[in-house]
Amino acid sequence: MKLLNGQPSEMLPLADRGLQFGDGVFRTLRLEHGVMPFWSRHYAKLAADCAVLGLSCPAEALLLEDIRQLGVDSATIKIIITRGESARGYAIPEGCQANRIVQATGLPAYPAEYYSQGVAVRLCATRASWQPALAGVKHLNRLENVLARREWQDPAIFDGLLLDRDGFVVEGVLSNILLLDQQGRVLTPLLRSSGVAGVMRAIALELFAAQGYTVQEQEIPVQTLLAARQIWLSNSLFGLLPVRQLGERQWIVDPLDTLLQEKLQHAAENEFLRLELPQDPARQGQRK
Amino acid sequence: MKLLNGQPSEMLPLADRGLQFGDGVFRTLRLEHGVMPFWSRHYAKLAADCAVLGLSCPAEALLLEDIRQLGVDSATIKIIITRGESARGYAIPEGCQANRIVQATGLPAYPAEYYSQGVAVRLCATRASWQPALAGVKHLNRLENVLARREWQDPAIFDGLLLDRDGFVVEGVLSNILLLDQQGRVLTPLLRSSGVAGVMRAIALELFAAQGYTVQEQEIPVQTLLAARQIWLSNSLFGLLPVRQLGERQWIVDPLDTLLQEKLQHAAENEFLRLELPQDPARQGQRK
Repeated sequence: MKLLNGQPSEMLPLADRGLQFGDGVFRTLRLEHGVMPFWSRHYAKLAADCAVLGLSCPAEALLLEDIRQLGVDSATIKIIITRGESARGYAIPEGCQANRIVQATGLPAYPAEYYSQGVAVRLCATRASWQPALAGVKHLNRLENVLARREWQDPAIFDGLLLDRDGFVVEGVLSNILLLDQQGRVLTPLLRSSGVAGVMRAIALELFAAQGYTVQEQEIPVQTLLAARQIWLSNSLFGLLPVRQLGERQWIVDPLDTLLQEKLQHAAENEFLRLELPQDPARQGQRK
Repeated sequence: MKLLNGQPSEMLPLADRGLQFGDGVFRTLRLEHGVMPFWSRHYAKLAADCAVLGLSCPAEALLLEDIRQLGVDSATIKIIITRGESARGYAIPEGCQANRIVQATGLPAYPAEYYSQGVAVRLCATRASWQPALAGVKHLNRLENVLARREWQDPAIFDGLLLDRDGFVVEGVLSNILLLDQQGRVLTPLLRSSGVAGVMRAIALELFAAQGYTVQEQEIPVQTLLAARQIWLSNSLFGLLPVRQLGERQWIVDPLDTLLQEKLQHAAENEFLRLELPQDPARQGQRK
């Protein structure tokens, strides 16, 4: 099910600048039994990303109404905000109205072993772009993720890691990266000139800090990654996943990870938005 | 008028990866009185760009049939090839079918003074991305062009120039750049890690070489640009335009430019494709 500006639609005008130039931003998040964990953070990030591009962000109530209208109580929700329609050319015409797309697809299932034993990742040949004007923003220019994802077919590989021009680690194709270094600090790449600064990354950094870890955003050479005591991937669909393998290097997943999952679960249970779904007694009964 | 896969349409499926990720390429070119200058080069560039992304490029005959079907004899033709539709996620599903969009909009009018006296340009604060995997390709990830174009409103400014991370000149927001340096050589930025290598840029380089100029693609610092005897912008809609002003620096446009326009006109008259438009005696009469 998809909505364009609140109306059911499977189509977008060809004149939309989201297609023509990738002129827009997006969010992907979980809706589980009528509950959206960390919704306020997702909305704040959407608004911040819109601000970077000079897009007008739809009101929160409008987006929530759209999500309710999708009529599902569990789904992956994707929100796209584009600049709207214009004639040919990069200049933004006066009165250009943002288009808002809200869609629901199935929630992916992650095997329990991914959390308890970790996932395998690879290093991609595709590098992350240098572009400080867009760094951190979840915008629609995602060709490098597509190219990096094309590098492997092996279903045993969960994600691929991208380096920047200087060889520093930036992120996964579909995740952010955090690591526990030899000094016991939690490090994550500084995303000042590349990459997307995800909501789950911010939450994970707070969780680690709350546990008493020193948390640092910095440039991370591949050697630091390989020498790490543990690596995690973060994104809003799977939360936090430990890494068990990167090329030849293997990690034994620490009990810390189990603890971390519990903390994350706890955080999600304390920070969420419960949708007021349309009255449906049958569905109500299924909700937590 | 717009066609999606040969059918009149104003709409594209929301599931198209062109929207979701900017996963596609495009071309913009002139159709004038049934004639498309340098068509074969445009098609060759489209095919080459598709190959970089691993997209299957539509057959030339299919695109020509689309353009004929637009039913206009003069227009700006924009061709977009996207990867096609897929569910959420960067991975490309098997059997993903490219979507082909062909649209006609009006031909922009460029005042004669632009050619005889030159145009004014500015230096943008937005930098060009570093991304060797996509450099040279005219792909749909054009957010940096949008951001750079947002930097000015003054209609007296024709284009804005972008530098890369290291301060080398890359291109204009809507053009390539060529210059005549103090040694009488024609230089143009090396587009190995940023920018789009346009069809008109290639033609201009050939024209200069044919005139006996030494032509070089290389890294060009801003100082070399400012010290140039002449600068030109190239793109497929306006051809070649001399620059008369960049910030404080002004240039007197040389009679060479007039000569260059004549050579370009001559080249266009020798290398084009004439569309076999539907029988329409009234329209036939209007054609050159």
